[in-house]
Amino acid sequence: MPSNIRNENEVDVLVIGAGPAGLMAAFALARAGVNVRIVDKRPDKVSAGQADGIQPRTLEVFKSYGLSDRLLREGTQLHVAAFYNPSKDGLGIELTDRVPDVSSTDTNFPFEAPLPSIQLTLHQGAIEAIFLDSMRDMGLEVRRPVLPISIEVQAQADSEERDAYPVRVVLKHADTEETETVHAKYVLGADGAHSWVRKMTGIAMQGEQTEYVWGVVDLVAETDLPDIRNKCAIHSNNGSCMIIPREGDKVRLYIQLDGKEVVDDAGRVDKSRCGPEMILDVARKTLHPFTIESPQTYDWWTIYAIGQRVAERYIVHDRVFIAGDACHTHSPKAGQGMNASMQDSYNLAWKLAHVLKGTAHRNLLQTYELERRHYAQELIAFDKKFAKLFSGKPYSELNLDGVSHAEFLKAFQTFGGFTSGLGVQYPESIIITSNQNQHLAKNVLVGRRLVPCPLLRAADCRPTDLHDLLVSDTRFKLLVFTGDTHEPSQMAQVEAFAQALMTPDSDSKNFFGGFSSLERIRSVLDVVTISSEKKGTIMYNRLPRALWSHWSKVLVDDLDMRGTTGGKVYESLGIDPAGAVIVVRPDAYVAAIAPLNGASEIGTYFANFMKAT
Amino acid sequence: MPSNIRNENEVDVLVIGAGPAGLMAAFALARAGVNVRIVDKRPDKVSAGQADGIQPRTLEVFKSYGLSDRLLREGTQLHVAAFYNPSKDGLGIELTDRVPDVSSTDTNFPFEAPLPSIQLTLHQGAIEAIFLDSMRDMGLEVRRPVLPISIEVQAQADSEERDAYPVRVVLKHADTEETETVHAKYVLGADGAHSWVRKMTGIAMQGEQTEYVWGVVDLVAETDLPDIRNKCAIHSNNGSCMIIPREGDKVRLYIQLDGKEVVDDAGRVDKSRCGPEMILDVARKTLHPFTIESPQTYDWWTIYAIGQRVAERYIVHDRVFIAGDACHTHSPKAGQGMNASMQDSYNLAWKLAHVLKGTAHRNLLQTYELERRHYAQELIAFDKKFAKLFSGKPYSELNLDGVSHAEFLKAFQTFGGFTSGLGVQYPESIIITSNQNQHLAKNVLVGRRLVPCPLLRAADCRPTDLHDLLVSDTRFKLLVFTGDTHEPSQMAQVEAFAQALMTPDSDSKNFFGGFSSLERIRSVLDVVTISSEKKGTIMYNRLPRALWSHWSKVLVDDLDMRGTTGGKVYESLGIDPAGAVIVVRPDAYVAAIAPLNGASEIGTYFANFMKAT
Repeated sequence: MPSNIRNENEVDVLVIGAGPAGLMAAFALARAGVNVRIVDKRPDKVSAGQADGIQPRTLEVFKSYGLSDRLLREGTQLHVAAFYNPSKDGLGIELTDRVPDVSSTDTNFPFEAPLPSIQLTLHQGAIEAIFLDSMRDMGLEVRRPVLPISIEVQAQADSEERDAYPVRVVLKHADTEETETVHAKYVLGADGAHSWVRKMTGIAMQGEQTEYVWGVVDLVAETDLPDIRNKCAIHSNNGSCMIIPREGDKVRLYIQLDGKEVVDDAGRVDKSRCGPEMILDVARKTLHPFTIESPQTYDWWTIYAIGQRVAERYIVHDRVFIAGDACHTHSPKAGQGMNASMQDSYNLAWKLAHVLKGTAHRNLLQTYELERRHYAQELIAFDKKFAKLFSGKPYSELNLDGVSHAEFLKAFQTFGGFTSGLGVQYPESIIITSNQNQHLAKNVLVGRRLVPCPLLRAADCRPTDLHDLLVSDTRFKLLVFTGDTHEPSQMAQVEAFAQALMTPDSDSKNFFGGFSSLERIRSVLDVVTISSEKKGTIMYNRLPRALWSHWSKVLVDDLDMRGTTGGKVYESLGIDPAGAVIVVRPDAYVAAIAPLNGASEIGTYFANFMKAT
Repeated sequence: MPSNIRNENEVDVLVIGAGPAGLMAAFALARAGVNVRIVDKRPDKVSAGQADGIQPRTLEVFKSYGLSDRLLREGTQLHVAAFYNPSKDGLGIELTDRVPDVSSTDTNFPFEAPLPSIQLTLHQGAIEAIFLDSMRDMGLEVRRPVLPISIEVQAQADSEERDAYPVRVVLKHADTEETETVHAKYVLGADGAHSWVRKMTGIAMQGEQTEYVWGVVDLVAETDLPDIRNKCAIHSNNGSCMIIPREGDKVRLYIQLDGKEVVDDAGRVDKSRCGPEMILDVARKTLHPFTIESPQTYDWWTIYAIGQRVAERYIVHDRVFIAGDACHTHSPKAGQGMNASMQDSYNLAWKLAHVLKGTAHRNLLQTYELERRHYAQELIAFDKKFAKLFSGKPYSELNLDGVSHAEFLKAFQTFGGFTSGLGVQYPESIIITSNQNQHLAKNVLVGRRLVPCPLLRAADCRPTDLHDLLVSDTRFKLLVFTGDTHEPSQMAQVEAFAQALMTPDSDSKNFFGGFSSLERIRSVLDVVTISSEKKGTIMYNRLPRALWSHWSKVLVDDLDMRGTTGGKVYESLGIDPAGAVIVVRPDAYVAAIAPLNGASEIGTYFANFMKAT
């Protein structure tokens, strides 16, 4: 045992569990400068199999941390969803349709940029490695194998006192049998479907076990199926199958199994009754007349029964949280699991960072449960509908009650916004306004993540999506749509806004007026200024200096120099020509819309949960 | 001195000089599996200043080696060329125009992809670091400081014998004063404008010194010039200036100086007579009414007189080569120097690799001088014209002989294909055919690098540019444009072609029939198959197996699944609906066009310089 582990330690946040949810939390907190520790009971990280789908919204989040290059390089891109159904001769299956794998979330936004709309596959171990390597660069390592022994939330838990360490956790280092006591300000249980933290805090799961049993196998497939490199949903008269291409030449097959054959008397899956060959045999019947050979080795396989459950609470005493599989379990079909888990802790991390830094009140933390439990409930509802359609017998003249391709495709596309993660909607709260100013930005949906906005940097005409500036640095972002700054009267409006909002110690009684310096304001609020002036004439340095901390933060709504991308963002978002200000949260969700003369409105929004410093 | 340096060593290729030309050569040869050594007389690599421009064609070459990500991440992108000219009031300068920095090379190809058309700036040291890191991964290090003492080409130089080491070079390790003798099959002198190899082999430079003296300074500029992040060409009544944005917030200023003030009696630049402040003072007069403050420190600066010269030969005895500044010197204005140098050795490396592996005859090597000296002569001709325009006084009512903006812009755009590197044309030779079959691919220019062709992978509809498959692996690429493979008669043609060309030991008397296996053919010739069938119906695995070594090598000419990019490549290239085969060299230059029944024509092309193995 390393000698630097003492028996009593203090830490701001202790993360228990180093799967995707725990690693995202530890990484995001460390990046935000929070003192964090992470432990896991397993001796090593996942090396193969497990979760594999990366939804477009997750890719966006990785990009906001500068981590998407590696995901894109290592992952397999899915562009096509192919549908196979019984052929007319009734003897097997045939190709019915090939459609885009990710359907547009919202017809208002036909310009969703290519990058975030790609679905990727990459095995869980590779994703964990991205976090582990980035954490190591910041001096943070997962301590393992470490088991939690006890957890206790002490009396001062409700204190607003920032120096309180009210959560006491005893850990056992399994390799040395030594124990240590950790005093934490906050604890996150990201310890999986059988969460110890959840059990110890007495949080119940709500929902039920389903009748569905799934077999999953990873292999390099020798096959004549022409869509083996596409996502395939196959409905045959002999069962259903889903194919997901993986890294290199690997694929994953999902097969629904007959529960009776693999479930024991107690209702649990009995792995001794089955194996990958059994799964492949079922796949062969479904794929006929296409063939698939048995490989030399199987990369990974599993069989499991599906529960559809959500935790009744995500937070205890505002001090202990659970995230990921500890909160929700469901089927694997829509590739949601790992994504939902990472999004849970991504949602929590920036809130914890603000509270720990003293820039926000503790009431901010409650929005974590509100937002993520709401999402999980929608996820289960979706899962129930989709599982039914997927498992149904295909429609035919002999089976008029069956699921037709049109019906299945419609469901696939309807849920596209949800399964891509791009259309997730958070409910109204202290950080999501009721949206009084929709007329100023007609197509901007408050409570959803901001859509991609292809613009140009004014100073050098480099194509820049707004998301390139919505980096995950825990700062709120103020998007100042100035209107046409070539007009002197409009420029005067912009100057007045800058004066009213971005000037500390002003007489305006504005919330930000209470900050001690412009630097302090900028430490919680970055400003991006977007003019509707054209690239040929704009002089970025004529815009008020308080509205851009660097020349790269002034954008114009125009086509790029090649005339091929960018522009029409004012039109697409429905921005009022007189200008508008959009408040975007640190996680890129739209929080509020205000007019250019709405500095006090914006101040009121922040005063609800933020402290002037 | 490390003990593993013996006094007598053998090596396939010895590279003398580790600047951009030498490093590209050593890297490219090592990547091709060639036994190479590289030495340099300087104790360290360049750390600041020097060359900085990366032209689009160079970016393409880096991409073909998988090295472009780092260039794009570290480099600054230039999108705009801004032009400033005397303002109407005559008191200073004003913005005249902003145009794309890279103009399209050829109006036949409006679809040039965004990536390769970006001009980047990145300092020479960073570019050298990319090579050094990649070489280190292959176990190759630059030995320094090492001085060459003597070079001697022995009698067996002209031998076709692959095991001959006819070049004898004595090296001195400057740190230990020890010498060693290297016996090399080939030697490359990439040792700069004052090349020792050039002098020792008695190669003369042809051309002249110019009257132009330039001052160059790198700094972080505090200025109110709104185009400080764009490339600026500034013509004032007080002189000319060029601004090039660099990494971070740095910029480089190029100023033409009065030769009399800085040149000594012998005509050499006297650096003691000037400094960066002097350069900046001249810039201030040119930029008025815009201001520029003196920085705390200057990153780098230099002053130099320009020679416009080309070496009379690039090759001695087909065994010793020179490349880069050793072959050509010219002005820095078009950012050509480092690019031309790397392209020299990129051109040479694949030819040397084939000769050393025994897959090509030694006659291939002569094309190096033919192609790169031809290019250097064009470069000097361009430089003369452009320098005159750049240095000229601006046109005004008082100076009717001056250079007008329209005239300067026209020259800037006319030379765009050349300065971007995308429009370089190699002359006819044993590896560039006279292009008998233009009608089969009307817009494909033999002797030029293949233009970007946005296609889709048939198996998974992933957007893929043909250049993504034109990797620098020393293999020639056969682009088989099959026509519509949905038509059985067309498919029969494609099958016949595969049989005639890609079948070893056939009775066809075809050159590739003489190879001992399909694998041997593929070791020198990769095949990419491009169908005009549509993505919704194509079954990639129905195409002849000999025409794709992997599922990723079958492409379709269609829009991507989002309907935004790709397609119309048959139309843009003017491909005959009956199909066509395009032979592309290992460096992505188009070598020949043939019909689908032209297997023997293709064989004849290769038989000119290649050996069946």
